[in-house]
Amino acid sequence: MLPVSQRRLRSDIEANGEFGSIDEGDGYGRTVLAGTEANGAARDQFVHRLEAAGLDVTVDGIGNIVGRWDPPTADSTAAAIACGSHLDSVPEGGLFDGPLGTYAALEAVRAMQDAGVHPLRPIEVVCFTEEEGQRFGNGLLGSSVATGRTSLAEALELTDEDGVTCASGLEEIGYRGTGCLDASEWDAWLELHIEQGTRLTTADAAAGVVTAIAGITHCYVDIAGHADHAGSTPMDCRTDALAAASELTLDIEAMARGDTPGSSTAVGTVGRLDVSPNATNVIPGAVRLGVDIRDVSEASIESLVAELTTSAERIAADRGVEISIDRPYFVPPESMAERCQSALLAAGDRAAVDTLTLHSGAAHDTMNIARVTDAGLVFAPSRDGISHNPLEWTDWTDCAAATAVLAGAIADLAGVDVS
Amino acid sequence: MLPVSQRRLRSDIEANGEFGSIDEGDGYGRTVLAGTEANGAARDQFVHRLEAAGLDVTVDGIGNIVGRWDPPTADSTAAAIACGSHLDSVPEGGLFDGPLGTYAALEAVRAMQDAGVHPLRPIEVVCFTEEEGQRFGNGLLGSSVATGRTSLAEALELTDEDGVTCASGLEEIGYRGTGCLDASEWDAWLELHIEQGTRLTTADAAAGVVTAIAGITHCYVDIAGHADHAGSTPMDCRTDALAAASELTLDIEAMARGDTPGSSTAVGTVGRLDVSPNATNVIPGAVRLGVDIRDVSEASIESLVAELTTSAERIAADRGVEISIDRPYFVPPESMAERCQSALLAAGDRAAVDTLTLHSGAAHDTMNIARVTDAGLVFAPSRDGISHNPLEWTDWTDCAAATAVLAGAIADLAGVDVS
Repeated sequence: MLPVSQRRLRSDIEANGEFGSIDEGDGYGRTVLAGTEANGAARDQFVHRLEAAGLDVTVDGIGNIVGRWDPPTADSTAAAIACGSHLDSVPEGGLFDGPLGTYAALEAVRAMQDAGVHPLRPIEVVCFTEEEGQRFGNGLLGSSVATGRTSLAEALELTDEDGVTCASGLEEIGYRGTGCLDASEWDAWLELHIEQGTRLTTADAAAGVVTAIAGITHCYVDIAGHADHAGSTPMDCRTDALAAASELTLDIEAMARGDTPGSSTAVGTVGRLDVSPNATNVIPGAVRLGVDIRDVSEASIESLVAELTTSAERIAADRGVEISIDRPYFVPPESMAERCQSALLAAGDRAAVDTLTLHSGAAHDTMNIARVTDAGLVFAPSRDGISHNPLEWTDWTDCAAATAVLAGAIADLAGVDVS
Repeated sequence: MLPVSQRRLRSDIEANGEFGSIDEGDGYGRTVLAGTEANGAARDQFVHRLEAAGLDVTVDGIGNIVGRWDPPTADSTAAAIACGSHLDSVPEGGLFDGPLGTYAALEAVRAMQDAGVHPLRPIEVVCFTEEEGQRFGNGLLGSSVATGRTSLAEALELTDEDGVTCASGLEEIGYRGTGCLDASEWDAWLELHIEQGTRLTTADAAAGVVTAIAGITHCYVDIAGHADHAGSTPMDCRTDALAAASELTLDIEAMARGDTPGSSTAVGTVGRLDVSPNATNVIPGAVRLGVDIRDVSEASIESLVAELTTSAERIAADRGVEISIDRPYFVPPESMAERCQSALLAAGDRAAVDTLTLHSGAAHDTMNIARVTDAGLVFAPSRDGISHNPLEWTDWTDCAAATAVLAGAIADLAGVDVS
């Protein structure tokens, strides 16, 4: 078992938590948007830590940072094993979402170095730019560029709400590098991330091996009724857009819940609902709903969208409202590579860490990488499932255990004899 | 039958429609907020028309305009019969809401003058200030002051969204008068208003005699759930505040609809709904609903509020959300005086105008007046029930027919021999 150091990992993550830290309230909050001063400081520390471990650091055109370890035993022309996560956060986010996976990747390399193992492939430790999409609006930005999903030029032209481009944000902090990372050149990719759910804590497991990342579609539903006087319009003369929207919201919940155990990975959420004119004494004339539907099966997503459409048609017929559905966003589900899952499960066994296989309902950079090379994702437990919140927490022993699983899998994929 | 002039009434209302008129779109839109230039111009025309009919005009401290007719046959110390409505509008309101009743009252006096009838009581034609409550926030403002519900000092200190006081708004247009109109001194009050519903057009009746004005209560319901990740939170681990709010919205609709025909006057509306954080990919953590409940029976209103509370408790228990209900606003229902209703119905018969008895779901200045003296309310038909909209429309023949009913009832109440 590789000598992962909980002390070293914790020291890195705690130091990273100082950048953009929120002093108020409970927990350990931080706000680290891409291209801000806090993000620059967090990147600087990461680069120093990579260099301290003897890694060669490069920064690409969208600010993705790569620390490359070319062990003397490796064929430097062989495709690398890559591993990492992100350092940006949501506003008032927590300590672990991103930094755990980024520093765990570095810790895995340091543990291999300490153990004197002999990898046959180079290993790259990666920090992707703007995973959260909180400043320039496109989540998974760095990995989208590294996988050809978004062009570098297009990504650099994205602007924040003040009109500042992504290019100048990165330049400002000294992280607009050159070239473009190409994830398809990697032999395999692994990411450690917090679960953001409660399945691991419920099962008392320290690591979860992800089988698939759910696909996502967003539908925007416009419901048009009649805005009438709440006093002078009898109940049987109304075309209330909000009552119609309420039926649809409950239908979406019921559909996603499903009647059979087979649909346990499906989720459906009406997260956004805007009423017009939104006055207590006026019957709502129009409502717009933002619907988020996810599942690990594309067929299941399509089936849920079809059910949503059927429900909307029934409600329109029953209530005399007009309903239109727009569906501008769809990202298909991605299965994790069998060899990556096997490497992670075997590493868990060797390290005597209780593991669980599960799916990811949340999107991660790994979702992009899986489209161009073999990819794997491993979760560490989230206390009470809380994330994107200063109260986000993973016990340090669990951080170390999940990092040991990650390190063991990297070593295995890199050709180290782990038997 | 009194010789009500459709031409004269139409000319007054069309001329009034020029003040604050909206040029764009279909219909006849106007924006006449209290104390604005448009409101000043509309008031000036009204005063000129009152004076042209020989009425003595006074303006009280809150800008209520009274045109008093002291017929030679009347005892000038007797309590007056008063009649009128308002000239202010909602933003982009229509031609008839307020002006019809204001100018119909004047037309009733002119018709009596033309007919040479002999009233035994003085008659007062009234325009109340800020019925719509669109600038200084208190609807029914002028009648609230005239009935002692709001003090003159308090009313004058109300401010608009730019911090301008009601006092200076009225001064600006020359309508901050002196003293305070006391509606309790009137022997009786009548108001003609558009229905803002479709019961009259459905029944093909030109006038509706109101039996009672519905009471109103507003409840604000706060629902607290947990804002969680829409992807990583399984359906059975959610505390979705919007799904809970949707159930409550449908419960309120079902309650107000009722299962028995006896509750046909009850209405319940969720007019306002605000979601937090209101992002498509986040499970709603909190929702606030603004609920409007009305009925002509106070017991029915209380029963609906009790049902709302029971529903909220059930939903809270079922879904694990926390629900609190605040109820800051309640105006009890008001019955119209039997003698006023009888006078209106009899006048309809004499004028051969088809009348209908019905309740008012909307509040009107008459609601205040009914608390201090005998009051009656008569409706003219609204095409398609549309109001607060440039498309608001009442056929001129219907305007004249309803005015004939009003004039006949005023004459009757003022002691004219109508037999």
